[in-house]
Amino acid sequence: MSAYREMNRDSIGAELSSLRRRYQQMQQKGLMLNISRGKPGADQLDLSRGLLSVISESDSLLAEDGTDCGNYGVLEGIPEAKRLMADILELEPEEVIVGGSSSLNLMHDCVSIGYLFGYPGGTGGWGKEENIKFLCPSPGYDRHFSVTEHFGFELVVVPMNAGGPDMDVVEHLVQDKSVKGIWCVPKYSNPEGKTFSDETVRRLAAISPMAPDFRVFWDNAYAVHDLFPSEPDTLLSLMAELKSNGRQDMALMFTSTSKVTFPGGGISAIGASRANIAWLKKHFAPQVIGYDKINMLRHAKFLPDLEAVKKHKAKHAAILRPKFDAVLKTLDKELSGLEIASWTQPRGGYFISLDVMDGCAKRVVELCKEAGLILTGSGATYPYGMDPRDANIRIAPSFATADEVKTASELLALCVRLAAAEKLQAE
Amino acid sequence: MSAYREMNRDSIGAELSSLRRRYQQMQQKGLMLNISRGKPGADQLDLSRGLLSVISESDSLLAEDGTDCGNYGVLEGIPEAKRLMADILELEPEEVIVGGSSSLNLMHDCVSIGYLFGYPGGTGGWGKEENIKFLCPSPGYDRHFSVTEHFGFELVVVPMNAGGPDMDVVEHLVQDKSVKGIWCVPKYSNPEGKTFSDETVRRLAAISPMAPDFRVFWDNAYAVHDLFPSEPDTLLSLMAELKSNGRQDMALMFTSTSKVTFPGGGISAIGASRANIAWLKKHFAPQVIGYDKINMLRHAKFLPDLEAVKKHKAKHAAILRPKFDAVLKTLDKELSGLEIASWTQPRGGYFISLDVMDGCAKRVVELCKEAGLILTGSGATYPYGMDPRDANIRIAPSFATADEVKTASELLALCVRLAAAEKLQAE
Repeated sequence: MSAYREMNRDSIGAELSSLRRRYQQMQQKGLMLNISRGKPGADQLDLSRGLLSVISESDSLLAEDGTDCGNYGVLEGIPEAKRLMADILELEPEEVIVGGSSSLNLMHDCVSIGYLFGYPGGTGGWGKEENIKFLCPSPGYDRHFSVTEHFGFELVVVPMNAGGPDMDVVEHLVQDKSVKGIWCVPKYSNPEGKTFSDETVRRLAAISPMAPDFRVFWDNAYAVHDLFPSEPDTLLSLMAELKSNGRQDMALMFTSTSKVTFPGGGISAIGASRANIAWLKKHFAPQVIGYDKINMLRHAKFLPDLEAVKKHKAKHAAILRPKFDAVLKTLDKELSGLEIASWTQPRGGYFISLDVMDGCAKRVVELCKEAGLILTGSGATYPYGMDPRDANIRIAPSFATADEVKTASELLALCVRLAAAEKLQAE
Repeated sequence: MSAYREMNRDSIGAELSSLRRRYQQMQQKGLMLNISRGKPGADQLDLSRGLLSVISESDSLLAEDGTDCGNYGVLEGIPEAKRLMADILELEPEEVIVGGSSSLNLMHDCVSIGYLFGYPGGTGGWGKEENIKFLCPSPGYDRHFSVTEHFGFELVVVPMNAGGPDMDVVEHLVQDKSVKGIWCVPKYSNPEGKTFSDETVRRLAAISPMAPDFRVFWDNAYAVHDLFPSEPDTLLSLMAELKSNGRQDMALMFTSTSKVTFPGGGISAIGASRANIAWLKKHFAPQVIGYDKINMLRHAKFLPDLEAVKKHKAKHAAILRPKFDAVLKTLDKELSGLEIASWTQPRGGYFISLDVMDGCAKRVVELCKEAGLILTGSGATYPYGMDPRDANIRIAPSFATADEVKTASELLALCVRLAAAEKLQAE
């Protein structure tokens, strides 16, 4: 098939008629599909069932340092859980606070602490200033953007390049004192599945923001979420780079086991310099006596070290790969050569990012919906839900079965073509 | 023994010498005792070991409405957990959000929401005003006071009467628009073990604060924590009273299973009117996808209804009563008639409150410490850690064994006498 742009009016008309017939046939199937949510599928959850029995009625609840996990105390978490999360974040256990079941909650709390009290090196709460801004590499994770929007930050879009956020833009924007931080998903980014290049990490570690307590919010949500465990993407350690620049206070790091064990039932962590950890502990102390240590102990027993995590994640990868494959093969088969769409080929994470013809994403999502396929709302990957090009669509293939994903991808590809043909005919 | 105040100088001198000899003997025992912490003892924790096995590897993780507790979603919690927590709070399930393992965290978050955004009926975030205040019935719970201190509220002491906070004072103070809320532990209060009288609850439900979004923070931490389950204190339903006044939005209620199952490993809840619940869900949505539903399911299976909770708590009571008895009998034996101390006789909760001679609490805590007994820091039960009379001491008999509690109480009583005699001799 040739590129749509090169087709004449009659050919486009014929293509549109053909696509409409196919679309009507799909509609008649009464499909009920959903590839909108970055949730593991039931088969993935089953991999972690052992976690449910790893501590039973007769087992000790003592952590390795003697802490009774069944009683109050220990704000920063038990040693074995700190070590596990530190290994995932490539930090020292002293640089980690283990949290509850939601890393989003920790990120929210860290934004809140910045808003109310600022961070070491700064001059107090960011919220005391008139106009505060946060950098949002986009497309990105809508829930990140929502946190800073909720606190009233102006969300500033930073384009994503192949190797991560456009660092020319970042270096320029941080010269504005009102810019207080940047959201990053550095490995297998949401939604593009991109891993920040070494150059990006080095340049990020070398920025000199005007705001003295600017913080990089480094959400390493997919640190161990390789689709090809024998050939994982490698991410340079931001903390190591920061330390060698004497700037170790500039980053706050996050991860969780939500997509390792049970989403919303796992454990989470903050990683940061000792100065930041001390600051965070001071500000967390009035908020919580300590997070759920029984669940920390469960996780540390079920996943005693990074090697165990990697073995466990390899089983996830084996389940996920066919689903990603189903999307990629279908898009390739249906859309290659038409020059109306491009998409990412992630080597990990939970998403594939699809760019359709400018001005067509909303229409594609709508067409899919009317034929029984729920996609992430168009625009969701941009601050304020506004995709300036109306082009980006996030595909989340994990929750549905591989067969469903294949059907969903066929319908999606059809709708991408239909929307493009509609647009070209209307031009 | 006669009242110390009625003894002449010689008699006090002789008493002091005798007490000092006994104190030296106690010091030589090399005691290491701690009655400072409101933590359940190991025997109490063992009562909940069944919780650890109530969901095992092969069990379903589906909630009764089909929600997969092992995956993301459902901000307000699963139906069976909402029902359980609603029953404890005497509310409807629709009036409840089930949280994570810390009700303190929920209270902190609710203060934060008020500070940043205010509540329905108000004019926006409390923090936008110059000078904001929070009422602190005292003696009270130090961690409550710390939350509002952290946000910069001025903490205003309200005296505690036999039936709860002095309502004349509360009614007067809420005429100040800068007063945004009041902390209450309405049943078996911390540290006095007092239950608010019907009159207190009715008057509280009838106040007309100047701040339009004033909120009663009703921490019903000890709702089911009766020491005498067949004759529990009864607490009038604040929500029922508020509803009959059309003022149901004025309270935010909290409870948790921290002292029912595992402290820091249980589940927590907010109870509130539908309007407040909607407001809270809107402000929690950017913060968290949902709290740990697996732990909610565990709790709902282990404690399927209020009857099960009461049976379970009766076992706790049987363990706690001898410890409370040991304190009360010892204080009675050693201090009755001396007119240098008074103490509460709680019928539930976790604490006994001891008032020593004015100006002596710090000295008593110090004397105890030097003989090997750790008490809650003097002043801790007052805002800013400042007890204006330097008289209140919180006794937490739950964590130590009954024998240890007996020895601790003997030492404590001795130190109360010693500090009083020292003071009288110096006068």
